[in-house]
Amino acid sequence: MQPLKQTPRNTVRRVAERGSFDRQLAYDILDEALICHVAFVADDQPMAIPTAFARDDDQLIVHGSVASRMLKTMSTEMPVCITVTLLDGIVLARSVFESSMNYRSVVALGTAKLVTDPAAKLAALHQLTEHLAPGRWEDARQPSEKELGATSVLTLALEEATVKVRKGGPKDLEKDLERPIWAGVIPLDLAAGDPVTDPTGAGIEAVPGYAASYQRKQPAGRAVKG
Amino acid sequence: MQPLKQTPRNTVRRVAERGSFDRQLAYDILDEALICHVAFVADDQPMAIPTAFARDDDQLIVHGSVASRMLKTMSTEMPVCITVTLLDGIVLARSVFESSMNYRSVVALGTAKLVTDPAAKLAALHQLTEHLAPGRWEDARQPSEKELGATSVLTLALEEATVKVRKGGPKDLEKDLERPIWAGVIPLDLAAGDPVTDPTGAGIEAVPGYAASYQRKQPAGRAVKG
Repeated sequence: MQPLKQTPRNTVRRVAERGSFDRQLAYDILDEALICHVAFVADDQPMAIPTAFARDDDQLIVHGSVASRMLKTMSTEMPVCITVTLLDGIVLARSVFESSMNYRSVVALGTAKLVTDPAAKLAALHQLTEHLAPGRWEDARQPSEKELGATSVLTLALEEATVKVRKGGPKDLEKDLERPIWAGVIPLDLAAGDPVTDPTGAGIEAVPGYAASYQRKQPAGRAVKG
Repeated sequence: MQPLKQTPRNTVRRVAERGSFDRQLAYDILDEALICHVAFVADDQPMAIPTAFARDDDQLIVHGSVASRMLKTMSTEMPVCITVTLLDGIVLARSVFESSMNYRSVVALGTAKLVTDPAAKLAALHQLTEHLAPGRWEDARQPSEKELGATSVLTLALEEATVKVRKGGPKDLEKDLERPIWAGVIPLDLAAGDPVTDPTGAGIEAVPGYAASYQRKQPAGRAVKG
């Protein structure tokens, strides 16, 4: 597997040991996360907009309304940045200065491509749906031609990208270690609650497996296959 | 309380009912969240970088190393965007097209200001620390003059900002409601695990209240005051 592409502008300069160009590590982070933030420039104003995404091999996929400013801007092949962040904990060091967060992030730079071929669009929407809930695509009503036409799909190749990871306990200065101050980590994780069935319509009560046993951090994806 | 400032560029155009300029709602979202994504432009490349933040009245505060590219760029009074997103659930509609996410976000635009006055810097760091764990500032070793000098603090006034909220169940087309497809919401929330005490140093085992009973969504802040 090819490593990610290191360039002067994506080289981690500060706390360099947190940076990595390990492609598999990037994929693991991307496959665990549910949303990304897309940075783009509109009228000289940088914007960071949250949106759903999925990964298909070395491509990041985002989608939305054809009327979306974000997607219209991305379609013009302007440079963009897609950032995915998992927050893993609060690190309380003995000093305020060394206190920190545990996290894993991927920052991917490049130019997005508009997917125009209907079959490729459908495949991308399949990937987006299955990323959230493996099995849902077959259960749900799939997009009509009209819905497909109202949807823009864009891909960004994972080439120039950086992984950053901060993990473990506080790294206090030697001179602070003997202070009578509790130090440690408060672990954080995105947790799923019990599914809430929509009360309208046909009243299907049987919650499918991928919703009932929604669990993150499964090695093979986010949800237990239903 | 003044509403947030609506301008042509921050007006929510699509699904307009999700947009709001309610300042109190913005504050509630900001006070619950732990990280933001800062969008800025460096060498014509937009970047979105995750970082800790806090709110002090109508100011967003970010900080980091004086060597940080993000903070150095922000210090030049270039336009930036600070986005805070809380992911609240996965919405599984009967159709793939109407499937969505529940979320609350604040997108703030403007120009950041470098805080140079040492007392104001210290006050900002106090705010950042207390945002994560109310009570920690008094417990921890506070920044030395040297540490303060190595830290950049920037503020962004909450003026031109947009709140977006998607909540509730799926909004299927009428014609899809009677399909025999389960539909509903998988609620999501960032959950804290048991604090992990750092094994090095003086070996203080007594976990302070703000770490032991770390809970989000408290009306008066994130953690229960210790």
